[in-house]
Amino acid sequence: MGSNFQPLPGFRDFAPRQRQLSRYLFEAWTRVARRYGFSEYEAPLLESAELYLKKSGGELSEQLFRFEDKGGRDVVLRPELTASLARITAAQQRDYPKPLKWFEIGRCFRYEKPQRGRSREFYQFNADILGESSPSADAELIALSIDVMRELGFSEGEFCVRLSDREAWLEFCRGNGISDTQLDAFLQVVDKIERDPEEKLRERLKPFSVELETVLSFIQDADGECSANLSAVLSDLAIRGLDRFAAIDLSIVRGLAYYTGVVFEVFDAGKTLRSVAGGGRYDSLVSIVTDDSIDLPATGYAMGDCVIMELLNETAGPLAQYQAWLQRQSTCDAYVVIADESKRAEAVKLVNTLRESGLGADYPLAPLRINKQFKAADQTLARFAFVVGSEFPALTLRNLNSRTEESISPDSDPIELLRTRLDQPDGPLIA
Amino acid sequence: MGSNFQPLPGFRDFAPRQRQLSRYLFEAWTRVARRYGFSEYEAPLLESAELYLKKSGGELSEQLFRFEDKGGRDVVLRPELTASLARITAAQQRDYPKPLKWFEIGRCFRYEKPQRGRSREFYQFNADILGESSPSADAELIALSIDVMRELGFSEGEFCVRLSDREAWLEFCRGNGISDTQLDAFLQVVDKIERDPEEKLRERLKPFSVELETVLSFIQDADGECSANLSAVLSDLAIRGLDRFAAIDLSIVRGLAYYTGVVFEVFDAGKTLRSVAGGGRYDSLVSIVTDDSIDLPATGYAMGDCVIMELLNETAGPLAQYQAWLQRQSTCDAYVVIADESKRAEAVKLVNTLRESGLGADYPLAPLRINKQFKAADQTLARFAFVVGSEFPALTLRNLNSRTEESISPDSDPIELLRTRLDQPDGPLIA
Repeated sequence: MGSNFQPLPGFRDFAPRQRQLSRYLFEAWTRVARRYGFSEYEAPLLESAELYLKKSGGELSEQLFRFEDKGGRDVVLRPELTASLARITAAQQRDYPKPLKWFEIGRCFRYEKPQRGRSREFYQFNADILGESSPSADAELIALSIDVMRELGFSEGEFCVRLSDREAWLEFCRGNGISDTQLDAFLQVVDKIERDPEEKLRERLKPFSVELETVLSFIQDADGECSANLSAVLSDLAIRGLDRFAAIDLSIVRGLAYYTGVVFEVFDAGKTLRSVAGGGRYDSLVSIVTDDSIDLPATGYAMGDCVIMELLNETAGPLAQYQAWLQRQSTCDAYVVIADESKRAEAVKLVNTLRESGLGADYPLAPLRINKQFKAADQTLARFAFVVGSEFPALTLRNLNSRTEESISPDSDPIELLRTRLDQPDGPLIA
Repeated sequence: MGSNFQPLPGFRDFAPRQRQLSRYLFEAWTRVARRYGFSEYEAPLLESAELYLKKSGGELSEQLFRFEDKGGRDVVLRPELTASLARITAAQQRDYPKPLKWFEIGRCFRYEKPQRGRSREFYQFNADILGESSPSADAELIALSIDVMRELGFSEGEFCVRLSDREAWLEFCRGNGISDTQLDAFLQVVDKIERDPEEKLRERLKPFSVELETVLSFIQDADGECSANLSAVLSDLAIRGLDRFAAIDLSIVRGLAYYTGVVFEVFDAGKTLRSVAGGGRYDSLVSIVTDDSIDLPATGYAMGDCVIMELLNETAGPLAQYQAWLQRQSTCDAYVVIADESKRAEAVKLVNTLRESGLGADYPLAPLRINKQFKAADQTLARFAFVVGSEFPALTLRNLNSRTEESISPDSDPIELLRTRLDQPDGPLIA
């Protein structure tokens, strides 16, 4: 059973158990973004195809969910957010003080071969700074990218941010007879320099008349002095005590054509070396999207939900932190057990009073054996149950962890008693 | 300017200022759902067209964003959630205790004429109970629908839940010679009974050989006794003290074909009488979606974001409550003002320490005149600013509401001082 009721290939269903991890991740993303002073925005999921074709180029334009709507418009499900952000900031930037520090958590769509860590519909957390060209903006985003990992429980040595600068490559090209118009094509080769076999790399470098050794030694010799921007970013990170999480690596160039300056990727430090997040400066994008009518220097960061969820599940510290969080996720402050069905009205009334007091409450919607009710109460992770019966005492409060019970006299307030008991610790929750 | 940078017709951009209201709404939805013991799930936005054509029928199938994906699949952007929920619960229901109480907040898409209170991409809050056929489940959802309105600040008299029962109409049809197979078509006429002119209604009723007067008097004579299910729901609501928000109204039949029993709609009580939410029982849907392999009685509720946002903006109490919430939305605990650029490193270090302590902090990424920095601090709604300078005192803490300042000695901990001051009230925030 079940195979008939699957989502489309590469799409995911999040039943409540799977959804918990998403929520944990989204809450961590939101906490860090807000702590850094970013405001939340939200862009449409559907955009004119022109907007994304104009800009992303390359691989992405092959992976679009693209169609004609009922009105004959050529539209796409967004494959990422940056072009939408450029469009929205172009329209609204006058209404906001600069720099804009905006973030979004939303879905994106790419028609790729579904595989581990990659799905056709995924969440992406984006944080962008627009209207500030100083390297301090790049450093601010890179610091944020580090703190997202730390917020999720990753420690020094478990991840690394690799920094690079497309301007350094522009200089390299100029010094090696590669024209500015060839830069993008050349960087596509550099982008694969760690993955392609040597022969293939030599072949692909031929049009640029540059030796593989020259490229490799440029990468190997890079240090903090290789570009003024990278130096400034590293000093800023050092002031924050965050430089220990970062390293220069010029082999990072990012796939998309719109990057212009400092770029970076966050990698897990295990042998798999997966990229879990990335970003960089895209000073020309708003100009491109607005046909040069608005110029807004910008730098951005994005993390998808697929790779980080995998990594979290495989890394002891972050996984333990998530599991501890899970144990605190009961939203049921009290489960109301109906020990005698003739008292259902009293029980429903109590449930309603609990909820009106802002407390979470649940109860059996239909008659249920009492042991099944206590099982249901445990499944909600509730710490307490009220037991409503007809015999004396008519109402008791049971601590579901310590398995102790106290009777409630008819003239006392059960809500007040519960609040008092909720404020008292009773040891760790039962798993 | 701006018209070139608009979203697609009927789509909305939520820049941070617009996004605040969405977040306020989503938080209220989530609070109420969790207080009622619902767990969050999430379905894909793209589904096979068959799933939604199979089920929604009628108007909705004319409004689909439907296309063929790169793999030749006939797919749709979901116009609502219920068919996806039926699919997912069919696949996963064995892993969860019954009844399932699940909620989702997510986007839906309908290609309709964009107008006030209606857009092509909208948010919908869904709460559903599956696996329980008792009217107590209907009452639980109707109570939730009432508490969503109250949570948003709507009072008695400002909204009303109208209850109806499709089974009562089934009885009516049987008593008036209308066959069961005609029920859906007949209910389409009833659905428009308040809007269509009399002559049109008489014309549309002809195929059913029933007089308009017979239908109208059936609606007018309805009371709590008209159906056992409605009686049970009303008693349950009365126990909760919530019956004052509800009334029987058999003219409510809901547009979609899959409803089977108790149905309801939430209306604003103003003269506009807009439906802001609705729901009802759909006991056969899981059977239909699973070709009779799984039978799961169900009842659901949904509220879109468009009409309720309009209503909230027009209603004094709820609007005041939202505005008060807005004033508490600063995520910046302290803005760090750099009074002397030579002290930027110290300032950045302080910002980082604040953030590592879990506090929200912001600062100027590039040199900025000091009055502009204080303006930026005010725009974050921060209550406090640290001022970093080179003269004595090198560090001061300024209360931005009371405009008072205190100097911080080099041997004291600025974070501890800030925490103490944050815990002390200093009157209402400045708007």
